[in-house]
Amino acid sequence: MKDKDVEGRLTELGKELLADVSKKKSPKMTMPQRGLNNVHFDKASSLLRLGKKTSTRSFMNVAHSKKFMQTAMIGAKCKELVSRGKTASIRELYYQLKHSIAETKENTFDDQSESDPLIVDLETMLEVMREELHLKADDKGTLIGNIIIEDSGDTIDCSKLGRSGLSVPSIVEQYKFKKVNAKYVLVIETGAMFDRLVEEKYHIKNNCIMVATKGQAARGCRRLVNRLHTELKLPAIMFTDGDPWGYYIYSVMKAGSMALAHESLRLGTPGMKFVGMTMSDIDAYGLEKVTETLKDVDKKRVSELLQYPWFQKKEWKKELDLMVNKGVRIEQQALASKSLEFVAEEYLPQKIKSGELLS
Amino acid sequence: MKDKDVEGRLTELGKELLADVSKKKSPKMTMPQRGLNNVHFDKASSLLRLGKKTSTRSFMNVAHSKKFMQTAMIGAKCKELVSRGKTASIRELYYQLKHSIAETKENTFDDQSESDPLIVDLETMLEVMREELHLKADDKGTLIGNIIIEDSGDTIDCSKLGRSGLSVPSIVEQYKFKKVNAKYVLVIETGAMFDRLVEEKYHIKNNCIMVATKGQAARGCRRLVNRLHTELKLPAIMFTDGDPWGYYIYSVMKAGSMALAHESLRLGTPGMKFVGMTMSDIDAYGLEKVTETLKDVDKKRVSELLQYPWFQKKEWKKELDLMVNKGVRIEQQALASKSLEFVAEEYLPQKIKSGELLS
Repeated sequence: MKDKDVEGRLTELGKELLADVSKKKSPKMTMPQRGLNNVHFDKASSLLRLGKKTSTRSFMNVAHSKKFMQTAMIGAKCKELVSRGKTASIRELYYQLKHSIAETKENTFDDQSESDPLIVDLETMLEVMREELHLKADDKGTLIGNIIIEDSGDTIDCSKLGRSGLSVPSIVEQYKFKKVNAKYVLVIETGAMFDRLVEEKYHIKNNCIMVATKGQAARGCRRLVNRLHTELKLPAIMFTDGDPWGYYIYSVMKAGSMALAHESLRLGTPGMKFVGMTMSDIDAYGLEKVTETLKDVDKKRVSELLQYPWFQKKEWKKELDLMVNKGVRIEQQALASKSLEFVAEEYLPQKIKSGELLS
Repeated sequence: MKDKDVEGRLTELGKELLADVSKKKSPKMTMPQRGLNNVHFDKASSLLRLGKKTSTRSFMNVAHSKKFMQTAMIGAKCKELVSRGKTASIRELYYQLKHSIAETKENTFDDQSESDPLIVDLETMLEVMREELHLKADDKGTLIGNIIIEDSGDTIDCSKLGRSGLSVPSIVEQYKFKKVNAKYVLVIETGAMFDRLVEEKYHIKNNCIMVATKGQAARGCRRLVNRLHTELKLPAIMFTDGDPWGYYIYSVMKAGSMALAHESLRLGTPGMKFVGMTMSDIDAYGLEKVTETLKDVDKKRVSELLQYPWFQKKEWKKELDLMVNKGVRIEQQALASKSLEFVAEEYLPQKIKSGELLS
């Protein structure tokens, strides 16, 4: 969405509130509910989505007044950010708005935990992404490969960044994909495995773009993979540790998350596939000696995953059941027990070429 | 140090062990002790250094045999890595060496916690850095600014990386600084503040290189700042949150850490100065309303810092005492309460220009 349109929606909201006031009615805001009872897995889109339940915040309701004021303040500040072409972190936004209210002992905000959920209210109310309101979350992640990106006036050839790669910022809306010559995007959980594949020149030999999420993916990373997949039609393949945490990182990249269900369309990549590590890999590649014992906290997480509708697929149930039955998990880096090159020269190319992927 | 020299030291160690064996003596390795009783703050170099106490690991001592074998295995694997021009993460090294010992039920290694300290033993014994043994730790950190770096055959102009910046890898030994036109290096604790300064074009307007450590700095980041400072004679200035955790991040960047005292010379930057946030800033810039209350865990950390020899400076004692007396801490991002641009247009340029820096 263009800045002008976002500004338009914010202005519209302000005008509606003003209209209520001039009619001597209590101004109100209506927004989708975000509790788990209004989040569902939408089979058609393969995404976690918000339902149709809404709630209303009214200025003249004492229980709502402060939050109403705070939401309006955030809206006004976002309008200022967008119109000035500035961005702010959600922490900076909090500090920008925190002040004492004249002739009272009250502060507008006492803690960032008050402003954060109201930002999400504004996002859902206006159907705009946080990044479109010019607000930033933390950034994390690295990209390397055969793509030329224009970022803020600079043209960056991501195939010419040595072993370092491009730091993925928190906002990637400004990225323009100028030229791409890659067959797919490989998304990798750990920085160490990304380094291994860079060292083996995997991205060059296999002509792909590689993205390291470095644990649970930050929003910038998720949005970038979504854009590479939807705008450039690049297949996206995920490579994580073989444990419930890795599988959930995949699940968030693919279907979105419960907390951000309102942004699944722009952050999720439902066409994404999964290359490994699977529990079946342990037998297939003789990795029994380099597994780790499943801890109680891992087992608990597996049983949670088994409840999620989007893991109700034969192939995933088989993997999760195998994990419980074997009582083990396995890391990406355990493939080094074969040889350092094994992951890049045999494991990944073989599995990807033969289409041995979960979805 | 060149690969050839590192390989030479590893070969030398092997030959010494072999010589003992051929003389029917128990082979031994002698290495500096690394306990806190052998770590001291060296005033002359302003670095944390290891002392002269050593300990010996002997093959024929039953209490040492397994560790002796493990250390020798790690040495042999590092020699292989160096000679093949490969690097491995310390996790991969563990997986590469983990196997069962023929005709026993014993494994060479059962957990990475066994191999990690032995890597450090080898580093101190041979006086080589982990990175020179071709071993990698996790990477973290971003660089942007007016410097051209050659990395693995690619020439990277770090002033042309949009708002993204270069991802700092875990090993930066291969970096060649081709051209630099910057007045200093500004090292920044939080990713969000780095983003703010990038957005304000601080690095362009003030002609500096900016590095984000994103919390406690990874080794790659520390080594990079050390190299920029010592090889290019660039002043290094640190900008952290005003709390004991931020001050300790500065202290590690500057003087090294107790755990890695053997590498302080190559990871520490004793010439580094500190621009803020200081407790004095709170009064100077009217930031009383945007401080946070000091928690017990913060207070405990402050009293620890007050014990460290390298904080025994009048200016630092004043700041730490002020922190306890005011009972508050302050974040970098709290400067946004003045205006988003304040940090880039007033706070940093004024303090740096007037030399209002702690050391």
